[in-house]
Amino acid sequence: MSMTVSEKILANASGEKEVEAGEIVMADIDVAMTHDLTGPLSVESFERIRADRVWDPERIVVIFDHQVPADSIEAARNHMIMRDFVRKQGIGNFYDVREGVCHQVLPEKGHVVPGEVVVGTDSHTCTHGALGAFATGIGSTDMAMVFATGKLWFRVPETLRFEITGSLPEHVYAKDVVLNIIGRVGADGATYMACEFAGETVAEMSVSDRMVLSNMAIEMGGKTGIVEPDEKTIRYVEKRSGKPYRVFKTDKDAASLRVMDIDVSELEPQVSCPHNVDNVKPVSEVEGTEIDQVFLGSCTNGRLSDLRDAAGILKNRKVSDDVRMLVIPASREVYRRALEEGLMEIFVDAGALVCNPCCGPCLGGHVGLLGPGEVSLSTSNRNFRGRQGSPEAEVYLSSAAVAAASAVKGKITHPANIK
Amino acid sequence: MSMTVSEKILANASGEKEVEAGEIVMADIDVAMTHDLTGPLSVESFERIRADRVWDPERIVVIFDHQVPADSIEAARNHMIMRDFVRKQGIGNFYDVREGVCHQVLPEKGHVVPGEVVVGTDSHTCTHGALGAFATGIGSTDMAMVFATGKLWFRVPETLRFEITGSLPEHVYAKDVVLNIIGRVGADGATYMACEFAGETVAEMSVSDRMVLSNMAIEMGGKTGIVEPDEKTIRYVEKRSGKPYRVFKTDKDAASLRVMDIDVSELEPQVSCPHNVDNVKPVSEVEGTEIDQVFLGSCTNGRLSDLRDAAGILKNRKVSDDVRMLVIPASREVYRRALEEGLMEIFVDAGALVCNPCCGPCLGGHVGLLGPGEVSLSTSNRNFRGRQGSPEAEVYLSSAAVAAASAVKGKITHPANIK
Repeated sequence: MSMTVSEKILANASGEKEVEAGEIVMADIDVAMTHDLTGPLSVESFERIRADRVWDPERIVVIFDHQVPADSIEAARNHMIMRDFVRKQGIGNFYDVREGVCHQVLPEKGHVVPGEVVVGTDSHTCTHGALGAFATGIGSTDMAMVFATGKLWFRVPETLRFEITGSLPEHVYAKDVVLNIIGRVGADGATYMACEFAGETVAEMSVSDRMVLSNMAIEMGGKTGIVEPDEKTIRYVEKRSGKPYRVFKTDKDAASLRVMDIDVSELEPQVSCPHNVDNVKPVSEVEGTEIDQVFLGSCTNGRLSDLRDAAGILKNRKVSDDVRMLVIPASREVYRRALEEGLMEIFVDAGALVCNPCCGPCLGGHVGLLGPGEVSLSTSNRNFRGRQGSPEAEVYLSSAAVAAASAVKGKITHPANIK
Repeated sequence: MSMTVSEKILANASGEKEVEAGEIVMADIDVAMTHDLTGPLSVESFERIRADRVWDPERIVVIFDHQVPADSIEAARNHMIMRDFVRKQGIGNFYDVREGVCHQVLPEKGHVVPGEVVVGTDSHTCTHGALGAFATGIGSTDMAMVFATGKLWFRVPETLRFEITGSLPEHVYAKDVVLNIIGRVGADGATYMACEFAGETVAEMSVSDRMVLSNMAIEMGGKTGIVEPDEKTIRYVEKRSGKPYRVFKTDKDAASLRVMDIDVSELEPQVSCPHNVDNVKPVSEVEGTEIDQVFLGSCTNGRLSDLRDAAGILKNRKVSDDVRMLVIPASREVYRRALEEGLMEIFVDAGALVCNPCCGPCLGGHVGLLGPGEVSLSTSNRNFRGRQGSPEAEVYLSSAAVAAASAVKGKITHPANIK
C-alpha cells in the first residue's frame, strides 16, 4: 500500500505493515522529552499511577529551558523535582539550566534520528520532524503513561504536503516561507494533519532552516511538521548521533496525501501581526510600525544562522535608542559558536543585550516581558494576546533579518531599506 | 580645624568652612542615582509633593539593573514609569536594560569624581566612596526631595579608619580583606560611621579592588565606605569623566577619627557563612561544604578582574556536574572586555552559564533563585535568610577565586586545593 512518510513511521512504530490515516495505532516511543515547566506535572502524574521505574531511562530526555536560571522559588522547586526524578530514574540524558532550548538541544545532542517517533511535553516538538522523525507535542499526563509504558496511541494523521518551489529572493528566509503558508491556510487549516515540507526550495535549505518550517507546523494546527530525510539530514545526524535511523519517504500516490503548491520566487519578507499567527502580511504593508522591543531567539529562530543574519545587518550599526534588542541564543552550542565567530561583540557594540540560552520572553516566562501598550517584534512563533507579557501589548513575528533591520530603525523595516 | 575626608566633603557640600561629626548639615547633592526597583517609588513620591521639574536633570542618573530584562509585567510597568520620567524630565543619563549594575555603570560612565556627594536609592551606593566621594544609600522618598531640591540633610558621621598593611598572600583578594574586617567589627560595629580604607595594602589595590572594600562598608553598618583619592583614582576618573573634582584627605588628628590596624599578610581566604555577613570564617574551616550553585557577579565582584580570576581557575577545568555556575558580568563594558579576552569561551567550555549584565540572584530578583534546602556560594555581598530565593536555602559569600575553585569541586574549596 502507498503511504506517506508519517504513515510509514507510525506503521513501523506500531509493528504494523500498513496503517492508514484515521486509524488508531499504539506506537512505541523512541524519544520522550520533557522540560522544567511541564516536567513536574508529568512526574507527579507518573507517581500518581504508582509507577515505580520508567520504561527506559535511555529514551527519556530532560532539558531545562523555560525558566533558566530559576526566576522564582517555585521555578527552583520545579528544577529540584526534575533533578530528583532524573537521579532516581537513572536518566543520563539530562540538561540542566546551562544548555538551552529543548528543540535545539535535542537534535544538537543527537537524540533525534530519521524514522523515530518523538514525543515531548511542548507544543513545538513538531520541530524534530525536520529530521524525518514523526515528532509531536503531548500533554504532561500523556507523558506519564509514556514514562510508564513507552507507548502512546495516535490517530494516524492525513498529510498536507507543501511542494515548495523557486529560489528564495534576497532577504527572504524559511521563516517567511512558513509564515506565508500559515497566512494562506489559516491557524486551523491543517488541524491534526501531518504537514510535510517538500520541493526544491526545501531541498536547498539547511537542516536549521527546515527546523523553522517544522517548528511552526503547529501554528496551522498540524500534528507534526515533517521533511523527508536527504543527504543533508543524514550528514547532520551522523555527526551527532550513533543511533540507527530509518529513512522513510512519502509515496506520491498515498491515499491520504493532499498537495499544495507554493512558489516562493516572488515572496516578500512576511510579518505576522497581532494577535494571531495567521494574520500574516508582507513587510511592506506594516513597514514603519513603531516597536519597543526586538527579540531575536527561540526554538524558531535562535540558531547560529539567525544570529549570523542579524549580525550581518547590525555590524557597524546601532540599535535605535527607542528599542531594546534581546539576543537569546537557542543553545550553549549556538552561543559558543557565536562567540567564536565574533557575533556577540557585534551585538554588544550595536547595543543589544545578549542573554543566556533559554526560551526568553517567547512564552511570557521572565526574560524581557512587555508592559501594557508596548510593541514587540519577535523571531519566535506565537503572538497571542498576552503571550510575551501584558495582554495590552502587541507582538509581531518575523525573520531574524527583519528583526535586526527593525531594531536599527526603531520600527518595522524591510532589510533592504536600512542603508 | 582638622577634619576627616568625609567631614571635608560634607563641609564643602554644605558651604561651611568646618563641620564636625554629630552635626547636622544640609548638603548639595552632586549625583542622585536611582534604579528600576526603587525608582518608581521615588518618582511617585516626587509627583506626590507636586514637584514639577527636577532640580537638575544633569545630576540625576537612572540605571536599570535589578529586573533586566523585565521578568514580569510589573517589572515592565516599572520600566515604563522610569522611561516616561526620564523623557519628561530631560534626563540624559539614562541606562536602559542593557547596561549593567548601577554601582558598576555609575563610575564606568564617569558620573562619580572625588569630592562629590553621591546619593542613590540603593544600600550599596557606598561603593562610590572608592573614588573619594561621600556616597551613601538613601530611601526612595528622600530621593523625591533630592529630585525636587538638590539638597539633603546629613548627620556628619564619625570615621572608622582601617589602616591596612601587608601584602596580600596568594589567593587572597580585597573581598577577603573586607569580609575579615566585617567579621571582626560585626554587622553593627560601624553603624552610621564613615568607614575609611587606607594603608599600604589599599594603596597597592586597583580602583576595582577598592570598590569591593567600599561596597561592603554597609555590611558593618557604615554610612559610607571611603578611600582617599590617589594617582590611581585620578587616572581612573580622568579617563572617564570631564567633571571637575576635588581631592580631600583625612587629617590624622581629626577629632572624630578612630583607627583600627589590620595586617593582612597572613590572611587566609575568607567565607561568610549563613545567615549573616559577619559570620566570617577562614575557608579552611568550611572547606568541603557541598554547594548547589555558584554565583559569580554583582556590584561586589562582577568586575573584569573577578572574571579574570575565576577564568584563570576554570580554564581547562570543568564545573562539577553537581553545581550550576552562573557568571553575570557587572556591566556591558565588563561583558565586552571579557568577550575580547576570551573569558566567555572559558566559562562556557567549563560548563558555566553566562547571563546578561544585571544584579542576578543577589537580591532574590529572578536570575538563579534557590529552592528550599539548596546551598549557594556567591561573590555578592549579602547572605541573609531568603536573600537569594527560598528562606530555607543557605548562602555563603566569598571571593571570585574561592567561588571558581568551589564550582570545580562541587564544594567549598581553597583555590590552592584544586590541582
